[in-house]
Amino acid sequence: MLVVMVAVSAQPRECSVARTLEVVGEKWALLAVREVFLGNGRFDEMVRRTGAPRDTMAARLRALTASGILERRQYSDHPARFEYHLTDAGRDLYPVILTLMRWGDRYLARGGGPPLRLEHRCGHVLGAQLVCEACGDQVVAAETTALRSR
Amino acid sequence: MLVVMVAVSAQPRECSVARTLEVVGEKWALLAVREVFLGNGRFDEMVRRTGAPRDTMAARLRALTASGILERRQYSDHPARFEYHLTDAGRDLYPVILTLMRWGDRYLARGGGPPLRLEHRCGHVLGAQLVCEACGDQVVAAETTALRSR
Repeated sequence: MLVVMVAVSAQPRECSVARTLEVVGEKWALLAVREVFLGNGRFDEMVRRTGAPRDTMAARLRALTASGILERRQYSDHPARFEYHLTDAGRDLYPVILTLMRWGDRYLARGGGPPLRLEHRCGHVLGAQLVCEACGDQVVAAETTALRSR
Repeated sequence: MLVVMVAVSAQPRECSVARTLEVVGEKWALLAVREVFLGNGRFDEMVRRTGAPRDTMAARLRALTASGILERRQYSDHPARFEYHLTDAGRDLYPVILTLMRWGDRYLARGGGPPLRLEHRCGHVLGAQLVCEACGDQVVAAETTALRSR
């Protein structure tokens, strides 16, 4: 990324990356979101499939619900049981999950290939690529310029 | 995402998202990477612009260097001073940073609009979109299917 230098500031940068990480910037939070994307929204199974400590998972689910990323719905009356679903804001985290997955597939495959493959509705194995909406070219850091920094 | 259910497992899922989060799944680590993308690879300034505690930032930089995401290069002899640069693996984290940024721009803008705008080399303000490499359509969770889960 080309950089337009601005005056050195003593303040942390105002930044959407930092703001997002305040909400989901913790391993167990993102793994909880991953589980719901994979169709698993029930607490015990989320704990099992992430390996999270139960207390930690419970705290993350409360925070994700309070942040409007997940919502909790009752699916059984007797006994009362609940499961988590993604809100629209939660579903919009899919690109974050996919780019994390792709990086791991590339750099941390440990010789075994990707642990999970996704098929796109077009019928091909999904290779997800970040492109510029305007020109369609793949986005790489060296071809972007920061316009303004507060 | 459509889900192909597999036998319930007592084991945490083998998953590239989880593996990646073991390396960069912590707020200060990703903010350190953000700073280097923004052209700021010097320790004191990284501390200032992220707001990270110095000890925490030092630990994250050591881990990111050990993981092959950053490399430390000397830029001054007297006194000996160092700055951090992205490796190829580090540069490939750009989509992760951009998708986090985009989500924050959308959901956490606090009425002020995006704090940072990027311009693509095509001349347009960058709107980065995740698309399928095969068909070019935007990727949404409801249009992908898990092929295999270990």
